[in-house]
Amino acid sequence: MTIDQTDRFARFLALHHGDRPLVLPNAWDHASAAALAAAGFAAVGTTSLGVAAAAGKPDAAGGTREETLALARRLGGLPVPFTVDIEGGFGDSPEEVAAFAAEVASAGAAGVNIEDGLPDGTLSGPDGRCAAIAAIKVAVPGLFVNARTDTFWLNAGGLSETVARVRAFADAGADGVFVPGVAEEPDIRVIVEAVALPLNVLFLPGRHTVAGLAALGVRRISTGSLLFRAALGAAVAAARAVAEGGDTPGGLPSYGEVQALAGAPAD
Amino acid sequence: MTIDQTDRFARFLALHHGDRPLVLPNAWDHASAAALAAAGFAAVGTTSLGVAAAAGKPDAAGGTREETLALARRLGGLPVPFTVDIEGGFGDSPEEVAAFAAEVASAGAAGVNIEDGLPDGTLSGPDGRCAAIAAIKVAVPGLFVNARTDTFWLNAGGLSETVARVRAFADAGADGVFVPGVAEEPDIRVIVEAVALPLNVLFLPGRHTVAGLAALGVRRISTGSLLFRAALGAAVAAARAVAEGGDTPGGLPSYGEVQALAGAPAD
Repeated sequence: MTIDQTDRFARFLALHHGDRPLVLPNAWDHASAAALAAAGFAAVGTTSLGVAAAAGKPDAAGGTREETLALARRLGGLPVPFTVDIEGGFGDSPEEVAAFAAEVASAGAAGVNIEDGLPDGTLSGPDGRCAAIAAIKVAVPGLFVNARTDTFWLNAGGLSETVARVRAFADAGADGVFVPGVAEEPDIRVIVEAVALPLNVLFLPGRHTVAGLAALGVRRISTGSLLFRAALGAAVAAARAVAEGGDTPGGLPSYGEVQALAGAPAD
Repeated sequence: MTIDQTDRFARFLALHHGDRPLVLPNAWDHASAAALAAAGFAAVGTTSLGVAAAAGKPDAAGGTREETLALARRLGGLPVPFTVDIEGGFGDSPEEVAAFAAEVASAGAAGVNIEDGLPDGTLSGPDGRCAAIAAIKVAVPGLFVNARTDTFWLNAGGLSETVARVRAFADAGADGVFVPGVAEEPDIRVIVEAVALPLNVLFLPGRHTVAGLAALGVRRISTGSLLFRAALGAAVAAARAVAEGGDTPGGLPSYGEVQALAGAPAD
């Protein structure tokens, strides 16, 4: 583990234990990540839906190993810590998953998300995920492993299975746990109390507020695919506005500002 | 030239000679291109700024040959014709440019844009561009070559140089000419009358309308980097809304709709 990796880990870990929860916006390419960093977010994640869709591939199907690693390499120069969604780990064994996580760490990532949802929409057994988590922490101790269970996301297993899984992931060495799809306050309270690790939830527009989640003890709030879907919707809306004579959006980043995100000198 | 290439060329060419100008929205990845096709646009282009920024590279610097070809290959399955911005051609000689254009055509593109602006912000001499255009048309007759002059874009040369260049490009075998940055009606009229080929202009929000450009005889209207910049702006705005408790955007494409753009079965 290099000093850089230790620093990245310490810096990213500390963001989970600040006065407020870490609001972690999810990017899908260098421009979106750099723009979010420039906007003042303290760290960025990636969205596997965005990464897959940008490449013309389906999400959560295990088919974007190459694109995920390429993105991690592109984000290596970001001025803030970043964490990479590696879906189920892109490997058939804990050792393969750990080797992939080590490649992502070498690219400069401070953390990874690893999930127990399977491409067929069911959950993998927890033992395999625990073995993968442990293998990653042995291979790269300074990589924040955010262990995600899709019990709520896939509506499989309920609260008791969720608690069992996040506890198992914690015992396996995870640094944080992630339960996307959990919406109700009582459920969130139970999960917060079930593990000592920082709990990450997916922000559900209209259901959640940052202040409300903070009061429940949530330590990390992800935007998931929201930003990618907002971007896609805005692009189509702007094209329609041009074609149909409507108002095109204002206040956009300029050509020079976009160039500057890639390190080009400002005009 | 395959039958497919001939068909693509004929279909794309016809869009320049319809009752209305071709409004060509510019995409930067598979998702944006597929979403624009799904929204009913008859064809899509690419934006070199978007392709470069997504990869963390500067635009118009000749550094995105690989990303440009990778995108063309990803767009091969689109249900509408697509045309690819190849900047200055990604080659040192007309033969190298033609070979690259042939690769893009093999990926399924109906056309390319090739420009005379140089990475240092000056214009290349017209002879080299004319030789490249002619070489492309020899190598791939069924590829629509849209020859772009950056006289207005770089504020170099003025109207008389613009007219000289578009005429030279037409004589070299171009299928269309593109003058981004031209804003004023009298200038557009002069260029339309100077060449028999379809004129493409960049839509300038607040300055242009499709109906107004149509009345001037413009046959193709590009959105350039507008959609990419709108997407980036919307992503950052959505992230801020989450963090600050504002309203997140509504009416977005759903997770399942984004998955469907990549050919995944709808939920």
